[in-house]
Amino acid sequence: MSPLVVQKFGGSSVAGADRIRRVARRIARERARGSDLVVVVSAMGDTTDELLALATAITEDPAPRELDMLLATGEHQSATLVSMALHALGVPAIALTGAQAGITTDGRYGRARIAGIEPVRVHEELAAGKVVIVAGFQGRSESSGDRHEVTTLGRGGSDTTAVALAARLHADRCQIFTDVRGIYTADPRLVPKARQLDVVGYEEMLELAHQGAQVMQVRAVELGWVNGVVIEVLSSFEDAPGTLIKEDPFVEQRNKVRGLAHDRNVAKVTLVEVPDRPGVARAVFDPLAEDGINVDMIVQNVGHRGATDLSFTVPRVDLARTKRILEPVIRELGFRELTTDSSVAKVSIVGAGIQNAPGYAARMFGALADAGVNIEMISTSEIRITTIIAEDDLEVAVQALHRAFELELPEAEVTEAEAEVTEAAVDAGDPATGVRAPRGGGATPTGTA
Amino acid sequence: MSPLVVQKFGGSSVAGADRIRRVARRIARERARGSDLVVVVSAMGDTTDELLALATAITEDPAPRELDMLLATGEHQSATLVSMALHALGVPAIALTGAQAGITTDGRYGRARIAGIEPVRVHEELAAGKVVIVAGFQGRSESSGDRHEVTTLGRGGSDTTAVALAARLHADRCQIFTDVRGIYTADPRLVPKARQLDVVGYEEMLELAHQGAQVMQVRAVELGWVNGVVIEVLSSFEDAPGTLIKEDPFVEQRNKVRGLAHDRNVAKVTLVEVPDRPGVARAVFDPLAEDGINVDMIVQNVGHRGATDLSFTVPRVDLARTKRILEPVIRELGFRELTTDSSVAKVSIVGAGIQNAPGYAARMFGALADAGVNIEMISTSEIRITTIIAEDDLEVAVQALHRAFELELPEAEVTEAEAEVTEAAVDAGDPATGVRAPRGGGATPTGTA
Repeated sequence: MSPLVVQKFGGSSVAGADRIRRVARRIARERARGSDLVVVVSAMGDTTDELLALATAITEDPAPRELDMLLATGEHQSATLVSMALHALGVPAIALTGAQAGITTDGRYGRARIAGIEPVRVHEELAAGKVVIVAGFQGRSESSGDRHEVTTLGRGGSDTTAVALAARLHADRCQIFTDVRGIYTADPRLVPKARQLDVVGYEEMLELAHQGAQVMQVRAVELGWVNGVVIEVLSSFEDAPGTLIKEDPFVEQRNKVRGLAHDRNVAKVTLVEVPDRPGVARAVFDPLAEDGINVDMIVQNVGHRGATDLSFTVPRVDLARTKRILEPVIRELGFRELTTDSSVAKVSIVGAGIQNAPGYAARMFGALADAGVNIEMISTSEIRITTIIAEDDLEVAVQALHRAFELELPEAEVTEAEAEVTEAAVDAGDPATGVRAPRGGGATPTGTA
Repeated sequence: MSPLVVQKFGGSSVAGADRIRRVARRIARERARGSDLVVVVSAMGDTTDELLALATAITEDPAPRELDMLLATGEHQSATLVSMALHALGVPAIALTGAQAGITTDGRYGRARIAGIEPVRVHEELAAGKVVIVAGFQGRSESSGDRHEVTTLGRGGSDTTAVALAARLHADRCQIFTDVRGIYTADPRLVPKARQLDVVGYEEMLELAHQGAQVMQVRAVELGWVNGVVIEVLSSFEDAPGTLIKEDPFVEQRNKVRGLAHDRNVAKVTLVEVPDRPGVARAVFDPLAEDGINVDMIVQNVGHRGATDLSFTVPRVDLARTKRILEPVIRELGFRELTTDSSVAKVSIVGAGIQNAPGYAARMFGALADAGVNIEMISTSEIRITTIIAEDDLEVAVQALHRAFELELPEAEVTEAEAEVTEAAVDAGDPATGVRAPRGGGATPTGTA
């Protein structure tokens, strides 16, 4: 039997006719090697952003159902175009929507989770000798009966589509083609000396992705971890080895800080003078959770005179919705005011070794201080330390941290310097008491531990 | 019970956020009058052309199934955006794809015909108090069982969607909003003196549309005629009375030439030295018909020395496909060669009175000759005379004909001059023996006769 390969091409890989033809040639080469192929595509280039901009030009608060129907068209378009480009090369191919590929979801617009995949049609088309192109990022809602509503999986959801299909189809390989050559120690656009990693553990990749590394979506990594799908991240523009995401038995021997992540899609919300009594936090976060807003870092200062300040971060795009949801809560609970700041950014250091050695926090904060960067919020997990800083400081901060943790050096060379730091580390205590990322903080420290 | 109004907004009416908001305000006004509303939308502005250009940049000959899936996204986008714009005005609304609206087709990609409409969901959403926005131009193939393939109705298919829905829902009104104020005696972009008509008969509108008037699609008019749907064509940019398309009992009292139509989407194909024997025409046109290519005018000259030249026109976009289909036929039948010319255009005069009075052909040809325009092919139907000319001559030709038939004058004033022409008409015989438009020529001359 032919090996089955799932390939995923991101938006920049299919931006325009020339790139789509190049993607088709790459698919055709893999096919010429005898593989059966399922190819997942994202929307072309900036299509999703353009559609979002169009929607928000019409209304600040687009209805989630209509927004999903709108955004899903981006992947329909790229899927059909890749299929056409394969036809032009004489390769039989067919484009399928998420629904046609049998992908059903839990029906939550804008952030649907895959409920199941019944790949009847995918198998049929593969059996008919076709390359199957699947529109990523989407599925049909399961609960809607005959209504067949389009739901999207959230930003970067095409990765999830690819890994889920690879798991369901028991694919031999799962390749994520992107505009970079693999996973780097930091974003090469900010840090020219950033270095490509050969292997990264699932958990480390999870933290990197969750903290803003754009290469892979968090859920796709989780899904790969749970299903043991080895994921290869590689460039769609050059023939070069990529980075493998998998269980990493050698993690203890590696540089303790594996990489940096940053995220500009962050807004800070502060509730000023919150009444300091039980149940207040629930009154604030329950309605946000119900509306599916992904609250990230939460900080509550020690109260004084019966009131306290409560800060947290949300994705910048959800800020307007967050404010709207909290307005009645504010009135009800009697806060003084709600302030917001959308000119912040998140910077994290990530490494499976962080949990075993103190001193990383102190070294991180020191490097930022030396670079003149003020820290606004701090959060930690077992293998990660995250700070919120002013967005204007982002580039300086990332470069300073990359130098401080010697990430530009090959891993073998860094061991000694690293060991030295570990031994010399100042036990500064846990600088972030009470601060836990609700998601990263809950990650099970198995596998890479 | 509230009156039910079907409104259709064309591509230029929904081109961009501002225009979409304007469309939403217009819909909201109609709703404030107490109407139930079903709104059909085309793709925004040039979206369909841009998608087509993208497809043809990838392959000269896109697979019809993938092309339909691609093009249908344009209407999904505009439908969702109009729905969002209504939400922003506080008007409950929901966007439905053609499939969700219950529209099924015969499954012919790129030129599907509506097989049926089961508007269960449309009724549900109307009953729930919502304005129902339907993506025009598309439906789900009926024959494909579980496969739910997207099929499009061909260019301008949103008109057909609107009229079909108006018929199926027994709508009280069917309004086609467009970028012009109604039906004109000629394209105002070519003829500044072109005059708007208050009423036009179904059959006249059919000929005008079939011969290239872009305002309404042929099939939409046919469908309106068969189902007795009175169609109002009006401007989405101003509040002004439009043109009613309906049975016109007063047709005999009107100007015999109702209007001019032109079409640039024409290519001429000539088969040189075709063997002059029975079955040849069938061998040529059967495979084109099977592939759904809409052959329009056909001219065969008198044969000499056992061979003849056979010319016909096809839509310019189908020219490449036509050549490909005819290549094996040419080899088989032994033509000398196949030549093509895609720099031609079609100009027609249309009027229900033409059938009852001779002399129109002579007057038309004379006006073109005076303007220095050479006629390459001629075709007639009961109420129409069509010529093929060089595309470069188009503007001159249309303006000359508009003057010659005094179309800029109000209808009452023209009666005498018109009567004079009719009486003084030279009986030039039928100048186009054997030349019949396969479609227009077959139109039943009832209703407006």
